[in-house]
Amino acid sequence: MLDQFKAHLERHFPHLFSAKILVACSGGIDSVLLAYFAKACRLNISLAHCNYHLRGEESDGDADFVRQLAKSLQVPLHSTGFNTLEIQRKQGGSIQMVARELRYEYFEELCQKNGYDFVLTGHHANDSLETFTINLSRGTGIDGLLGVPAINGKYNRPLLPFTRKELMAYARNHRIQWREDSSNKSNKYIRNRIRNKIVPELERLHPNFDQNFIQTLGYLKESATLLEAYANRLRKEYFMQGEYGTRIPISDLQNLQPLDAHLHLLFKPYGFTQWEDLLRMLQSTSGKEIYSTTHRLVKDREELLLLTLCTATENEFFIEKEMSQIVRPISLRFEEVDTIKEKNQNIAYLNKDLLKYPLVLRKWQNADYFYPIGMQGKKKLSKYFKDKKMSIIAKEQQWLLCSGEDIIWVVGHRLDHRYRVTADTTQIVKVILY
Amino acid sequence: MLDQFKAHLERHFPHLFSAKILVACSGGIDSVLLAYFAKACRLNISLAHCNYHLRGEESDGDADFVRQLAKSLQVPLHSTGFNTLEIQRKQGGSIQMVARELRYEYFEELCQKNGYDFVLTGHHANDSLETFTINLSRGTGIDGLLGVPAINGKYNRPLLPFTRKELMAYARNHRIQWREDSSNKSNKYIRNRIRNKIVPELERLHPNFDQNFIQTLGYLKESATLLEAYANRLRKEYFMQGEYGTRIPISDLQNLQPLDAHLHLLFKPYGFTQWEDLLRMLQSTSGKEIYSTTHRLVKDREELLLLTLCTATENEFFIEKEMSQIVRPISLRFEEVDTIKEKNQNIAYLNKDLLKYPLVLRKWQNADYFYPIGMQGKKKLSKYFKDKKMSIIAKEQQWLLCSGEDIIWVVGHRLDHRYRVTADTTQIVKVILY
Repeated sequence: MLDQFKAHLERHFPHLFSAKILVACSGGIDSVLLAYFAKACRLNISLAHCNYHLRGEESDGDADFVRQLAKSLQVPLHSTGFNTLEIQRKQGGSIQMVARELRYEYFEELCQKNGYDFVLTGHHANDSLETFTINLSRGTGIDGLLGVPAINGKYNRPLLPFTRKELMAYARNHRIQWREDSSNKSNKYIRNRIRNKIVPELERLHPNFDQNFIQTLGYLKESATLLEAYANRLRKEYFMQGEYGTRIPISDLQNLQPLDAHLHLLFKPYGFTQWEDLLRMLQSTSGKEIYSTTHRLVKDREELLLLTLCTATENEFFIEKEMSQIVRPISLRFEEVDTIKEKNQNIAYLNKDLLKYPLVLRKWQNADYFYPIGMQGKKKLSKYFKDKKMSIIAKEQQWLLCSGEDIIWVVGHRLDHRYRVTADTTQIVKVILY
Repeated sequence: MLDQFKAHLERHFPHLFSAKILVACSGGIDSVLLAYFAKACRLNISLAHCNYHLRGEESDGDADFVRQLAKSLQVPLHSTGFNTLEIQRKQGGSIQMVARELRYEYFEELCQKNGYDFVLTGHHANDSLETFTINLSRGTGIDGLLGVPAINGKYNRPLLPFTRKELMAYARNHRIQWREDSSNKSNKYIRNRIRNKIVPELERLHPNFDQNFIQTLGYLKESATLLEAYANRLRKEYFMQGEYGTRIPISDLQNLQPLDAHLHLLFKPYGFTQWEDLLRMLQSTSGKEIYSTTHRLVKDREELLLLTLCTATENEFFIEKEMSQIVRPISLRFEEVDTIKEKNQNIAYLNKDLLKYPLVLRKWQNADYFYPIGMQGKKKLSKYFKDKKMSIIAKEQQWLLCSGEDIIWVVGHRLDHRYRVTADTTQIVKVILY
């Protein structure tokens, strides 16, 4: 099995051999074997352990066990503890979700502070089977039936080709110790119910159930990859970069049969879900449109026009350098111009040389200030609003265009002095509120 | 539910409204409701019932029940009985497989004799879930996870959108009687184990498990349809009809990434499974080839050449009119010629006007005779072999080219007099054994 593991690493995780690696280790059989195998393959590893203090002495015993393991493997150990119940009480969510978040936050922190390139976790074939079953119970497409991903950013799972039974057998044969989590026996958690009730029955259906399932996942992953290749091929053929966004000839779309399946394939990745509306739009007059959280799709004569909305994190909307237009949260157009011509409240001319992209659109905060154009020095925004006699509602609705920390335009009101166009400005951006 | 059923028929089975229909009816809840619903939708139905005599009086009770049902619905009934255990003892196979074969044979017979256009069976969502689970346990690709097909030739399954629970609830609310099969409680059969052990646990995972599963099947079917559309698109683009078969430029194949997944997509439908060999073939010199039971794939310089093998049923190989060459079970080439030039044992010139396609290649049978060219009258083949002093092995290996019942060429030996080319022949086929 160690040989198999090593061959699997060489084939699918060659990047690990020259990297600095953190192995997430709970003390359970999967992560303990992962640590053993990684060490045996001479990977440069450290262990990380989280004590959630959910099972009293048993939790502390796990922490001790991992400390001993790190010592015997002669690898560094990072460990931490959380008052998980307390945190859950404040934050809400399930214990398992809270523990998961705490764990991944801790790993991120360790990676940043200590320069780890990758984090290995002990997910194995049975974890994929549980994920498969959970998603099946909720209703899913092919993407929900692919199990746990082997590589997800810096998180790598090299134990996925192995089943829990195989890991058990190996550990017993090699007298490797591990800690049994007593909560695994409880059927309170959905994963445990799958593990304890459903999987044993599935395994009774076929003597090679586990291996067959791994094979099934392989076939499904291949199908998912092919669907992506198909979508990319169609996009390459029919999606054309236009001035304002991507143009897609409707007649080309309508040649794709069955049409609804192809619309799902092409437009689901942009977050659209209004399939009935989209089908109707293909037949309708110009101007009809649908929105997703990230994109806008407009019928424009014989074409669909696919536009990127600026992305938002809570109340901040980011405007990338290449965007010529946004429609959310407000409609702005960005043009590079040579001279200042048209002038009014809804147009701002900015010194592009000074702008830091992505620009940010946001509402005002208490300590905000800016340098109103035509005035000496800075002014608190609250004072500016007060002088303008703006209502609470008006203040709440006021958008600020910002570059880094600086407010550069109180949109529709006042420009910032620092970002005005001067004789030295080499590039001018004209921003139009419409 | 009846309204839902009717809407489902109108949308997906409009052909049933003007057809003569046989409803397969065991007396179980699914087929009883199917009969009720079909009658309520004014379909032109008859019932068919098979008594397998596997459960003594209970089986006879089922037959009586269906007789009463047909009477009360005022529809014709066909019924039959089998000594299933006896047949299984002779034939082998599982009881369920034997019963299934007997049933479908009987339906085929009824359709032929009585002119039924379609057979409806009571398969519902839970049957799909069981099929899904069985295939999952055996290892499968996306095609094995699509459940029971709604339409499979003349067999139509309009109850697939409904779950067993829904059918139960409907039957109880409407005081519709049905027969409970006592063997459904036994966990001897794999389907019963899934039904009684696994499904209840799956349903505990999510309150809407059944509906979610139906939705999942819909998504997976869509993915399968898209994969087929992709394969067809690629074939249209890269597969060119050549003189001997389909030509596929290797450079085009190699542009498809990931290559192995695309080779599976394109060549699996032709029955190929030797993927390592195929990958190697792409790099190798001309002449390398792989076979499936129906096709041959040859590397020919910068192209792959895809050839159809003649199809075989047991010991008969069929040669279609458009085939110019076969390589199984022996290599023959077929050419239309104007005159007879080259002549030897391995070449036959035949009067094409008389040939009935598909021609058949087969071994000899006891009563075979033919009209040896140049002789008066017919001769038993066994006599011909004896005169030629052919060994048993030689006789066993001898292929006969036949048109309908007639032997037209004892391949490599002797032509049939009736099929010789005469002055009146307008089309000549030259057949070359090579």
